[in-house]
Amino acid sequence: MSFSPLLQQLITALRCLPGVGPKSAQRMAFHLLERDQQGALTLAGALEQAIDKIGRCGSCRTLSEVETCEICASTSRDKGMLCVLESPVDLFAVEQTGGFGGYYFVLGGHLSPIDGIGPEDLGIDQLLERLRAGEVRELILATNPTVEGEATAHYIAEQVRDLDIKVSRIAHGVPVGGELEYVDGGTLAHALAGRRSLI
Amino acid sequence: MSFSPLLQQLITALRCLPGVGPKSAQRMAFHLLERDQQGALTLAGALEQAIDKIGRCGSCRTLSEVETCEICASTSRDKGMLCVLESPVDLFAVEQTGGFGGYYFVLGGHLSPIDGIGPEDLGIDQLLERLRAGEVRELILATNPTVEGEATAHYIAEQVRDLDIKVSRIAHGVPVGGELEYVDGGTLAHALAGRRSLI
Repeated sequence: MSFSPLLQQLITALRCLPGVGPKSAQRMAFHLLERDQQGALTLAGALEQAIDKIGRCGSCRTLSEVETCEICASTSRDKGMLCVLESPVDLFAVEQTGGFGGYYFVLGGHLSPIDGIGPEDLGIDQLLERLRAGEVRELILATNPTVEGEATAHYIAEQVRDLDIKVSRIAHGVPVGGELEYVDGGTLAHALAGRRSLI
Repeated sequence: MSFSPLLQQLITALRCLPGVGPKSAQRMAFHLLERDQQGALTLAGALEQAIDKIGRCGSCRTLSEVETCEICASTSRDKGMLCVLESPVDLFAVEQTGGFGGYYFVLGGHLSPIDGIGPEDLGIDQLLERLRAGEVRELILATNPTVEGEATAHYIAEQVRDLDIKVSRIAHGVPVGGELEYVDGGTLAHALAGRRSLI
């Protein structure tokens, strides 16, 4: 026998969530129907509201339900520093460290010719326009340390070459608290090459 | 900084799903907003429809969007066999084995005086009424092999004692494909006590 049509529809719909396979989706569907109908309705409402209201900040392109996000609207940050990230979740990660006081720019992905994602999809024109305005002194490229992230960082660096702006890339190295034994060779090579003198 | 209100609301709402903690909920929210807005809307619709339309079968109490579920509506099954289960998901599990051709009755939980769940919450009156109608020859108690499940099975068996119905309990024993070494003592003791002669 199969599940009833609406139940099957719910199980299928739950699989759009990352990390949710057929068994988890089934468990979630039964849990919601049997034990948390209120939670299910709240979730449905939250999804609809979020999709309807959350757009992108006009200035930094992060997810925001207002035209200019909280960070871009703030006037107490350093206008001279701009950090380029791949996604809004990276912005939250950097912001949570509390170690950066400048502004952000979210690409919303990385260059990927195979998937047809070019500079225009990542708002690189908008980024260059902002850099040409002249307020930014240093551009920090904090795209992911993957092949695509590196390529995107290099592409942006090339575009900025003729402007009088310092361009930097976040450091590669061994993670804090990690053990050398378990660090991959590429990372270790970067950590050695990027060594800093202590005294 | 914190997430914007609607984003935070979505992350909180996603946590009603079983097995979803704060980090997973955050990942799911960003995934839906950045990469699968259509999936999010489909999920919202499926949740609303499921909660609105899926109720309980009037006959066996399993989840069903019609008054009488597919199984109860079927006339080709053995009316003499009735299998009592704790939840609809157990019904699907038993049904998927293809080894049972009778009808089902879903309690929707187990007796739990601490949580205030008594016989009336599990529809035991409805079950007894059905048994008194006289068509059922054998009642198979397939509640979970937990303390509460056993207690519920024993309670039902007591109620049925004065009716002329055979009452059975699913067998406890070693799982097929398991290794004795890893089977817990209680299960092994049950497996020995319930041994069957081969020749």
